[in-house]
Amino acid sequence: MKTIKNYVEANQQRFLDELFELLRFPSVSADSAYSDDVRHTAEYVAQKLTDAGAENVEICSTAGHPIVYGEKIIDPAKPTVLVYGHYDVQPPDPLELWETPPFEPTVRDGKIFARGACDDKGQFYMHIKAFELMQATNTLACNVKFMIEGEEEVGSDNLGVFVKANKERLAADVVLISDTAMISLDTPSLETGLRGLSYVEVEVVGPNRDLHSGVYGGAVANPVTILAQLIASLHDENNRIAIPGFYDDVVELNEAERNSLNEAPFDEAAYKADLGINALWGEKGYTTIERTGIRPTLEVNGIWGGYIGKGAKTVLPSKANAKLSMRLVPNQDPDKITALFTKHFERIAPAYVTVKVTPHHGGHPAVTPTDSVAYRAAEKAIEEAFGKKPIPTRGGGSIPIVSLFENELGLKTVLMGFGLDSDNLHSPNEKYDIANYFKGIETIPLFHKYFAELS
Amino acid sequence: MKTIKNYVEANQQRFLDELFELLRFPSVSADSAYSDDVRHTAEYVAQKLTDAGAENVEICSTAGHPIVYGEKIIDPAKPTVLVYGHYDVQPPDPLELWETPPFEPTVRDGKIFARGACDDKGQFYMHIKAFELMQATNTLACNVKFMIEGEEEVGSDNLGVFVKANKERLAADVVLISDTAMISLDTPSLETGLRGLSYVEVEVVGPNRDLHSGVYGGAVANPVTILAQLIASLHDENNRIAIPGFYDDVVELNEAERNSLNEAPFDEAAYKADLGINALWGEKGYTTIERTGIRPTLEVNGIWGGYIGKGAKTVLPSKANAKLSMRLVPNQDPDKITALFTKHFERIAPAYVTVKVTPHHGGHPAVTPTDSVAYRAAEKAIEEAFGKKPIPTRGGGSIPIVSLFENELGLKTVLMGFGLDSDNLHSPNEKYDIANYFKGIETIPLFHKYFAELS
Repeated sequence: MKTIKNYVEANQQRFLDELFELLRFPSVSADSAYSDDVRHTAEYVAQKLTDAGAENVEICSTAGHPIVYGEKIIDPAKPTVLVYGHYDVQPPDPLELWETPPFEPTVRDGKIFARGACDDKGQFYMHIKAFELMQATNTLACNVKFMIEGEEEVGSDNLGVFVKANKERLAADVVLISDTAMISLDTPSLETGLRGLSYVEVEVVGPNRDLHSGVYGGAVANPVTILAQLIASLHDENNRIAIPGFYDDVVELNEAERNSLNEAPFDEAAYKADLGINALWGEKGYTTIERTGIRPTLEVNGIWGGYIGKGAKTVLPSKANAKLSMRLVPNQDPDKITALFTKHFERIAPAYVTVKVTPHHGGHPAVTPTDSVAYRAAEKAIEEAFGKKPIPTRGGGSIPIVSLFENELGLKTVLMGFGLDSDNLHSPNEKYDIANYFKGIETIPLFHKYFAELS
Repeated sequence: MKTIKNYVEANQQRFLDELFELLRFPSVSADSAYSDDVRHTAEYVAQKLTDAGAENVEICSTAGHPIVYGEKIIDPAKPTVLVYGHYDVQPPDPLELWETPPFEPTVRDGKIFARGACDDKGQFYMHIKAFELMQATNTLACNVKFMIEGEEEVGSDNLGVFVKANKERLAADVVLISDTAMISLDTPSLETGLRGLSYVEVEVVGPNRDLHSGVYGGAVANPVTILAQLIASLHDENNRIAIPGFYDDVVELNEAERNSLNEAPFDEAAYKADLGINALWGEKGYTTIERTGIRPTLEVNGIWGGYIGKGAKTVLPSKANAKLSMRLVPNQDPDKITALFTKHFERIAPAYVTVKVTPHHGGHPAVTPTDSVAYRAAEKAIEEAFGKKPIPTRGGGSIPIVSLFENELGLKTVLMGFGLDSDNLHSPNEKYDIANYFKGIETIPLFHKYFAELS
C-alpha cells in the first residue's frame, strides 16, 4: 500500500494532465459529425496503453467506432484480468446549461468538470495508470488485457461482433469494469447487478403536412395530442408499466433480499433537496432503492413535435416523435420487451394516425455473484484502500456488455466503480472528484494482488 | 368590369413582379433575428402605396414592428373604406419540407409558392394594386385608408395601441380585410365569423438538472411523462375540452343555423385524401364544418423536452415544454379562457413537478353581420366578378383585430378573402393561386363601387 501511495503521489499532476488531455477529445459516438474526434481518441488511448507498458496494442476497426486492445502477459499460469472500458461519451446537449465548456475540463472545488469525466474516461483511465504503476513498481500480479471501446453510449453493437471473433485473444478469468458508482468515499459499495435496456424511438404521423390550427384544428387529430395520450397510457395509476406481458419475466426478490437491499443508507430528504423536488415518484409498493435497482422502468428520454422556436406559431403539426427507454431487470429479455412495446404501441394507436416504432439498442440485465473469488478480491481491495468493507448494491444503469461477456466468453464481471450518483452522468456539468480518481488508481492494484492470491 | 379587366391584363406581369419582390422579404415577426427584414418590408409597402397614389404615407413606429399607413381622401362626403392587412409572416420552419425556398417565390402549376404568398402579402397587396387601378382609371368611388401592420402573426399587441391613439385618422365606414379563404373559384364564399384565440406556453419542471435515466428513472417523476399526462387530460373521451368552465360562454347555434352552415359543400373523402388521413377526429356530436367553425378547440402547436438529437441518450430531462392554443367562438373571452386554462393547469399538476403557464397572445372571436351595406356590397362584387353569389361561411382562423376595430372604432368588418383552405398557411409550401390573385384585384374595385352606391 505504501509503494502504491508513493507512486501515485509522485505522479499526481501527470495523471491529471493526461486525463485532461483525454477529456478534451469530443468523442460523441451518437453523432457522426464527431467520427474523426472519436478516432483520435482511440489513437490517444492506444498511445497511452503503449506508454504504460502494454504489448500488442491495436486499434481494431469495426463497422462503427474502433476498439482499442492491449495486453501484458507476464505468465500464462497466472490469472488474467480483462479490463473493459469505453472512451466514447454522451452528447453534451443542452450546451447552454454547462457552467464551463464540456470538452475543456475545469477543476472546481476538487472536482473535474467535463463530459466523460466520470463516464467513462475518468474511470477507465484509472486502470491504465494503475497498470503503469504496477509495471513501474514491478508488482504486476496478474496478466492484464485491455479492451476499451467507442460505442458504449450507442449500444455496443460492434463490440458483440468483436468479442465473438476474438474469443481466444480475450480469454481471461474475470472482467473488471469501473463504470458505475459507489455510495460515497465514506460508504464504499460494490454493484452486484445492472439493469438491461430497451431503447426505442416512436413517430406518430397525422396529416401529410403541417396545418393551420385555426383552419383544421378540431377536425383533424393532432399527432402531439395523440402521442401525449399514448405516452400517458403507458403507466397505470400505480405507476406500473401498462404494457401487457411487461412484468411476466421479472424476478421478484424475496423479503430477506429486499430487506438487505433497503439497509443501504438512504436519506430521502437529502435526495429530494439535491434534486430540488418536493415529492418522489414511482411504482407503488416499492422503495426508492428498489425502484432504481430491482424494478423495471419506462422513461421518455426526449419528445418533439410542431413549432418549438420562439414566439407563437399556430400550427397543427404533421407528426410528433419521442425517444423512450425501458430499464430491465433479471430475467427480462430486451428483444422480447422491445417486441412487446412495439406490438402494444401499434395496437393502441388510434385510426387517426399511423405510428412507427424504431428500436435503437438493447442490453441484457445482469447480476454478478457475491461469492466469487473476483468479488472477494474486490471487497478486500476496497476494504484495504478505504478502511471499510463495501456494501453490495444493485445499480439502476445498464452496461449491456456484461451479459455479452458472460454468454460469449463465459466470464463473470466485477463492477468496481468509483463514481457517485451525483456525478451528473448524461447531464450538463458531468464531474468526477479528483479524490475518487486517485482512490481508484490506488485500489485497482490491490484488486490484482488479491485476485492473484485468492485464485 | 371591362375597364378593370383591361387594366389588369395590361399590367399582369408587373403585378406579379411586385408581389414577388414583396415575398422575398423574410418578414418573420416572431423572431427578433428578422427585425431588420421586417422594417425593410414596411419600407417597401410604404413605397408601393405612394407609387399607387396614396397620400400621407407614413411608417408608424410602435413598441414592436411598424405599421404602414396611407390614404386617399377624394371627397369627405363619400364613404370611407379602411383596408387592413399584415406584411409579417409566420416562421418558415420546418425548412426541410419546402420544395423551393420559402423566401424565393416560385411558380408551379399556376401557383405562387412562398411564405406569405396567401397569408397575407398576396392578399393585402391586391388592395394596393386595385387602388392603383382605380386611381389610374379614375374610378375611385370611396375614400380609402390603408393600415398594414407587421405583428399579426404575434398577436397585434401594438396595433391596439396604435388604433386607440389614432381614432380620428382611422375614421371610416367599414373595415375591408382579405386574409381569409373562400371555398373555391367555382364556389365563392364570404366569411361571416372568425374564432378568437388564447395562446399559452407551458413548462413542467421536475429535477433541477437532467438526470441519468438509469440511476434516477423510476424514482423521480419524468417531466415529459407528466406533461403528456396533463395534455392527455385536456380532452375527455368525447374530445371535448376538459377545463372546468371552458364552454360556459359558448353561444350554441340553433338547429336552423346549424343546418344552413352544413349546406356548404363538403366532400369528406376528398378532404381526407388531401390530408392523407384515414379518419377524422373531433368533438362528438358536431360535423367537421361545425368543429372548425362554430366550436372552440384546443391544439398543441409544439412540444419539446429532453434529448431530441440523433441517436440515443438515456436522460431523464429536467423539464418539458409545450405551446398550446385555444380557438374561441362567440362569446368566449380570451382573457377569461387564458385564466381558466392557467388555473386548471396549475391545479392538475402533481406535487412531483412545478408548472408555469405563460400567456402569449389572445384575440376575441367575431361575427360579421350579413345584412349590412358592406356585406351586400361584397356579395354583389363577388357575384359580378365570379358569376355566382357567395356562400356565407364561418372561418376557423382568428384575426384578433376584428373585434378591436369594432370596440375602438365602432366599425364592422367585411372578410373578403380570396385564399383557399389548401394554401398551406403556416405550413411548408404555402401558396397562392395566380388566378385568385388577379380575381381579387378585379373584385375589390367592384366592392368600392357598390359600397359607394349602396351607402
